[in-house]
Amino acid sequence: MNEEGLLRWIRRSVDPDGRWIGDDAAFLPAGEEWAVSVDHQVAGTHFPVDLDPAAVGRRLVAVNLSDLAACGAQPCFALLALATPPGWPIRRLVRAAAGRLEAAGARLVGGDLARAAQCVASLTVIGRRPTGGRWLRRDAAREGDALWLGGTVGESAAGRLWIERGARASSSGRRVTWPDEVERELRAARRFTAAGRAVTRHLAPEPQLALGRWLARRRRAAAIDVSDGVALDLHRLCRASRVGAVIEASRIAIPPAFPWMARALGRDPLDLALSGGEDYVLLFALPAGERPPARFGCTTIGRCTAGRGIFLQEGRRRRRLTASGWDHFTSAATNCGQPS
Amino acid sequence: MNEEGLLRWIRRSVDPDGRWIGDDAAFLPAGEEWAVSVDHQVAGTHFPVDLDPAAVGRRLVAVNLSDLAACGAQPCFALLALATPPGWPIRRLVRAAAGRLEAAGARLVGGDLARAAQCVASLTVIGRRPTGGRWLRRDAAREGDALWLGGTVGESAAGRLWIERGARASSSGRRVTWPDEVERELRAARRFTAAGRAVTRHLAPEPQLALGRWLARRRRAAAIDVSDGVALDLHRLCRASRVGAVIEASRIAIPPAFPWMARALGRDPLDLALSGGEDYVLLFALPAGERPPARFGCTTIGRCTAGRGIFLQEGRRRRRLTASGWDHFTSAATNCGQPS
Repeated sequence: MNEEGLLRWIRRSVDPDGRWIGDDAAFLPAGEEWAVSVDHQVAGTHFPVDLDPAAVGRRLVAVNLSDLAACGAQPCFALLALATPPGWPIRRLVRAAAGRLEAAGARLVGGDLARAAQCVASLTVIGRRPTGGRWLRRDAAREGDALWLGGTVGESAAGRLWIERGARASSSGRRVTWPDEVERELRAARRFTAAGRAVTRHLAPEPQLALGRWLARRRRAAAIDVSDGVALDLHRLCRASRVGAVIEASRIAIPPAFPWMARALGRDPLDLALSGGEDYVLLFALPAGERPPARFGCTTIGRCTAGRGIFLQEGRRRRRLTASGWDHFTSAATNCGQPS
Repeated sequence: MNEEGLLRWIRRSVDPDGRWIGDDAAFLPAGEEWAVSVDHQVAGTHFPVDLDPAAVGRRLVAVNLSDLAACGAQPCFALLALATPPGWPIRRLVRAAAGRLEAAGARLVGGDLARAAQCVASLTVIGRRPTGGRWLRRDAAREGDALWLGGTVGESAAGRLWIERGARASSSGRRVTWPDEVERELRAARRFTAAGRAVTRHLAPEPQLALGRWLARRRRAAAIDVSDGVALDLHRLCRASRVGAVIEASRIAIPPAFPWMARALGRDPLDLALSGGEDYVLLFALPAGERPPARFGCTTIGRCTAGRGIFLQEGRRRRRLTASGWDHFTSAATNCGQPS
């Protein structure tokens, strides 16, 4: 199928009535306020080169919608810039991405296709300010605020490491297959299900859109989505808000099998939980005494302080938390699929 | 410089007061209507791998703004997704892109950096509907309308072919350097300046934003920007508008030295003018009798007809014009920098 035919297929699939996809540009309806964000998925950097294109599409949408979650926006539109080798199954990616977008209330309204030696997908997402809400920002935390996490951390990083050890998702994304020796090890340790969940979590994170909108309706809240690890993203939130923080190691929520997994993968559990990254849960600050509804499954991990230091409390020991985390350019963190 | 440091540098350079670049997303001001578009530049596909990053940045902005020109929008914001090999001079690209955006009245408000084996840059541009204008679309042409071109065509394609023969731009983008034997040939034929202009035109096209806004204020106008060649883009405009067309070969505006250049490059001048692509001038339809102000340098090339056929008139001969043009996936057209 040539580019023109492919573009026609995309139009037909995602916009059968021709209402949304414009010509050279897509037009946003009047009378709303918009937040816009863009994020990449690059073969060999963010995902293994042989990952199913449908899984790439789902992941691309998830990490992008997480940025909208972090500012409290309701997703509405997306534009896809996709550079791929000739013959790459573009339609599998588009179908999966469009499905995920639709499930979140958004639609694909434009994009660009190009040829490249490796797959580089970038998605622009556009969300509207929800009625009665304000934009969530990083700079609204104040001394005395409680710090919260919207879910468990570390699991996605464990999933990435399992993928480096050969785990692969089925085309539906619901089943994980393993190299024989890894499967034997996991079954012997009764961690087979937990490890599969970590892989699924890594490949298809769930952006916390509803939590973001709830936060956007508070009198005051600061939020960031944890893409580069709690340690680094906490530094970002605190720097923007000009506060310090103390978080408690024992309060960082991790899945039950996580300490075993981290060690089996040759990592320190706390370190992997704090700096593994790609968790895509919200890290947020709320005035002391306010708490999110139980349905969101949030846990409080510490509080904002007057100074500028960021500390980790482990039992009676308090130490400085460095801003280490995932850095695309200098990090020693291993990438999936190919060496860095 | 690590990613965090680079992001801080970008913020400081393009948004010193911290007014525009949001946290996880950029926020568009209320009360406007917006058009959004995204376009790629890929090393080895759209530009030679060794092209100066500043030139890549200028070209990236130009081709994207051309999409906004085609819908009559006033550029306001842009987001940059940039995947590059480690050590690639990102700041050169960002500085050049931000400068071009600023000159067009727009600013960089967000983006994402990632690591990749080759440079893939994608830019999302956001423009507002100009006061008193409507959105320009492809589907508004009617039988009897005159067809116009906003400038000369073919020159950019000639520039691309000169680059394949070794022409390179200086870092300012204002001077072109040549392999010795090509330079001798050009000087002997007294085409040195014209060939340099073709290279510059290819690397830094001038999006016709003012013409687009003028067209958006007409009672009725249809427009498209010529990115894939007059032949293919005319087919697109006519298909969207459900009209046919007859254009006259003798009216297609080309630079004076173009026929010589095309032949020196082993191409048929008319064919290269009609299907070379990347001209980034507007192709538009206006009701018969209306004409754009002379300052825009437009020429009328034909008219829209009742049927659905697209014809090229060459003297007394009329033949069907095929939709051949630049196709990223199947075209035999050579790419710059590396074989397809």
